[in-house]
Amino acid sequence: MIEDMEGLYSASCQAMRRSLIRELLKLTRREGIISFAGGLPDPSTFPIDELVHISKEVLEKQGRLSLQYGPTEGDPRLREELSRWMAKDGISAGVDNILVTSGSQQGLDLVGRIFLDPGDPIIVELPTYMGGLTAFRSYRPEILGVPLDDEGMRTDLLEQVLEGLRRQGRRPKFIYVVPDFQNPSGITMSRARREHLLDLAARYRTLIVEDSPYRELRFEGEAPPPLYALDRDGRVIYLSTFSKTIAPGLRIAWVAAHEEIISRFVTAKQSMDLCSPALTQAIAAEFCARGYLSARIPRMIELYRSKRDVMLESLEAEMPEGVSWTRPEGGLFLWVRLPEGLDTEAMLPKAIEEEGVAYVVGSGFYADGSGKNTMRLTFCYPSPEEIREGIRRLARLIRRHL
Amino acid sequence: MIEDMEGLYSASCQAMRRSLIRELLKLTRREGIISFAGGLPDPSTFPIDELVHISKEVLEKQGRLSLQYGPTEGDPRLREELSRWMAKDGISAGVDNILVTSGSQQGLDLVGRIFLDPGDPIIVELPTYMGGLTAFRSYRPEILGVPLDDEGMRTDLLEQVLEGLRRQGRRPKFIYVVPDFQNPSGITMSRARREHLLDLAARYRTLIVEDSPYRELRFEGEAPPPLYALDRDGRVIYLSTFSKTIAPGLRIAWVAAHEEIISRFVTAKQSMDLCSPALTQAIAAEFCARGYLSARIPRMIELYRSKRDVMLESLEAEMPEGVSWTRPEGGLFLWVRLPEGLDTEAMLPKAIEEEGVAYVVGSGFYADGSGKNTMRLTFCYPSPEEIREGIRRLARLIRRHL
Repeated sequence: MIEDMEGLYSASCQAMRRSLIRELLKLTRREGIISFAGGLPDPSTFPIDELVHISKEVLEKQGRLSLQYGPTEGDPRLREELSRWMAKDGISAGVDNILVTSGSQQGLDLVGRIFLDPGDPIIVELPTYMGGLTAFRSYRPEILGVPLDDEGMRTDLLEQVLEGLRRQGRRPKFIYVVPDFQNPSGITMSRARREHLLDLAARYRTLIVEDSPYRELRFEGEAPPPLYALDRDGRVIYLSTFSKTIAPGLRIAWVAAHEEIISRFVTAKQSMDLCSPALTQAIAAEFCARGYLSARIPRMIELYRSKRDVMLESLEAEMPEGVSWTRPEGGLFLWVRLPEGLDTEAMLPKAIEEEGVAYVVGSGFYADGSGKNTMRLTFCYPSPEEIREGIRRLARLIRRHL
Repeated sequence: MIEDMEGLYSASCQAMRRSLIRELLKLTRREGIISFAGGLPDPSTFPIDELVHISKEVLEKQGRLSLQYGPTEGDPRLREELSRWMAKDGISAGVDNILVTSGSQQGLDLVGRIFLDPGDPIIVELPTYMGGLTAFRSYRPEILGVPLDDEGMRTDLLEQVLEGLRRQGRRPKFIYVVPDFQNPSGITMSRARREHLLDLAARYRTLIVEDSPYRELRFEGEAPPPLYALDRDGRVIYLSTFSKTIAPGLRIAWVAAHEEIISRFVTAKQSMDLCSPALTQAIAAEFCARGYLSARIPRMIELYRSKRDVMLESLEAEMPEGVSWTRPEGGLFLWVRLPEGLDTEAMLPKAIEEEGVAYVVGSGFYADGSGKNTMRLTFCYPSPEEIREGIRRLARLIRRHL
């Protein structure tokens, strides 16, 4: 390697850490390990037959277009489908309010790119989605955390944080929330909290980034409206994706926002990758147009609900006293809290080596490094039998550490 | 829109400009316009039948894998194919030296992300690829330009720039070159210049970013080795793509570099989009494994060579005295220089409205804003008849401005 290489890397690069989730994914591919770690959708839900037919048709009928460079904004037909798709949730976003991204992760990176300079304050939930933290941290903001309870972000505490910033003559660039079946906690923000959050954002003149990849996967109960649908000021940037509803391997996600913000996103995306693949976008557009998307979601909900139920029953049956967990009404994850003093990071190598079970260490989701006694479990990927056996193993491990 | 929105955007966002090329693409889709602007490959070269068969097979045989999240580094099988593919050019890069990116544009953005802080010096060719400038400018470096001649970057002048920086106690983060059939000029860097460039990079302790999307498309003459193949120090970061050899709509490109640099790229890409689509990567891997890639390149070369010849003949026949142009040995572009005093930017609206012909304004490729009397023409997209008619129109326009 060349001399003085370290001096060539940027400050952002030197601050980067590899995602714990992604690194763990590699570890847990070993034979015999039951993984509650990465949020990989159950591949039995992938619509392979439909995609075979659609990709053939797209290539044969419009191959010259769908193999060419496309507009940075995204395939116009796909954006029309997305506009219709979001309308069912009360989201009124036209084609010009939509940018197609390569996964929601790119949407988060774009948010960082267009809003963040080093030291800028932003506010996130405690805990929050690790991929959001990773994306924002590349831009070296000051990240302030606000705890969750069963109704989502504690907006009373948010107000204190906003007021504290105001006293310093500052305002956050945005407030980042995952309001539906939050990753990692599984918690959904109540309607009252949503309204309070919007009210605070207006009073303190900031934006809201609403990241909602799991919204479609509601097992029970009534869905509060998206923040985007409640907003009247063009203050909410809404992120969604087909990674959980069609398949992650297409990398099709999107951002909906005020036209003026979308226009900034488009300029930034031009410099980042010119455009997302025209081929996968054309396939996704056709998939929606044929009604396959809405048709398949009830089956996915049924599958994931039954897996969640198995996990909740197993936790109930196996876990020692002092361990608590959330009961998500949808999504892919639940959140386990061990008695204070236990350290899930220190326990993880033993979990994998001694018990053959994996989870995601909770502290990675905390912007302030707290949450040492917490872990995230996913019920989407393992089979019901694996869930039962995995929770048994996990309970055994925890009992040994009590 | 919300109040004080401007104050929320980052410095990077405020410095962004929309890519002239991308904006022009929209304009030139109008009926009757002959466009020598965007570097869109000729869609008649797209291997539609092959892709129909391969995508069916990939989905049916390995759909569960190729619709799932994949490793950030890229599909391992694709990286093996890329390693073999580059070996024919003397590039020795193993799987661990390769990162798959979403177009080379993402590779350029990654280069910016891991190396550039505001004010950092970098060196580029005058002119250079506009997408490179756009990517790097997001990170607000100080961009220094070194002119080209018929053998590529004037390394004697490069040495002066490097020496000037050294006297200030600085070194550039990297030197960015497009050595093969450069975009925009069509010029290829000679072997002697390549060796001198490597020698200077070593003496001044900096890196070289070698962006080579057109290398496969050599119509005649002998190819000098890639800088990556001549390098002995792990100093060269090599970027290549399938956008010009298979199809841009797959958005499959890659970076080859020292393992330690690749590892930084991987961490950065995790935060940017987690991974590129597994589906398009699996398709590209199969496409290579079947030998389709090497089989099709001779046909593409023949097509583009004949179009280049038509353009050169037309320029010879039509252009008034005082207009000069490059004679590229490959690639997609040639470069036209009008007499001093003419301004291709001011002429462009007239070209489109009065003559129905489009080109790319040359000054956008100059980091220092010079080159006002230059333009880039592509011969890859229009048909031979369109090339003849378009050059006739362009010559008429130029004559009117002389």
